[in-house]
Amino acid sequence: MIDFACKQFMLDDVIKCSLGLTRADFALFEFLLEHNREFSTTQLADSLKFDLSTVQRSVKKLFDHEVVIRSQVNLTGGGYVYHYKIADRNKIRSILKNIVSSWAKTVETELNRW
Amino acid sequence: MIDFACKQFMLDDVIKCSLGLTRADFALFEFLLEHNREFSTTQLADSLKFDLSTVQRSVKKLFDHEVVIRSQVNLTGGGYVYHYKIADRNKIRSILKNIVSSWAKTVETELNRW
Repeated sequence: MIDFACKQFMLDDVIKCSLGLTRADFALFEFLLEHNREFSTTQLADSLKFDLSTVQRSVKKLFDHEVVIRSQVNLTGGGYVYHYKIADRNKIRSILKNIVSSWAKTVETELNRW
Repeated sequence: MIDFACKQFMLDDVIKCSLGLTRADFALFEFLLEHNREFSTTQLADSLKFDLSTVQRSVKKLFDHEVVIRSQVNLTGGGYVYHYKIADRNKIRSILKNIVSSWAKTVETELNRW
């Protein structure tokens, strides 16, 4: 439990809010974190019982935030698909720390103006 | 307005929560901030229409947090009273910054454990 200005936060909330994740995004994030290997969007949709379009939107967001990496897998008949995998935990940690420290920085800026 | 983990805070809330101030404590704090000179507890009680005991409790808390300074005023008949004055604004600012940075530190510690 984390205290900030008389409110209490779970670390999960902090993660969710740092990255602006919906419940679905976060479920996918947690799934990838638990299963540290590559998945296609179809596999993710099956495993999580999510619509493919939900999964596609979620992995895109997670990829944009650099907490998920992707690799291009070429198909035998031509074309390719992406496979997704959770990023290195230290990398994720450092992304989150940067966001939290920018929150703290805002308070500091406000206090300087005060 | 300050964002932290999807919640929004006014700077006043941050100040109040940093120092664990009640509404009365904060009113007194603001009063002293606006009137940058010394007051006896009786004068404060009169000005704010607070019970003397409320004022005494509040100034003690503010003094303990070092956001208020006090000076001893000797009475002609013997004995003394304290007069209270807001601390230097930079001093208050630095106290608040330390508290906020310790909140951010907690999140960092939690993330390191994560």
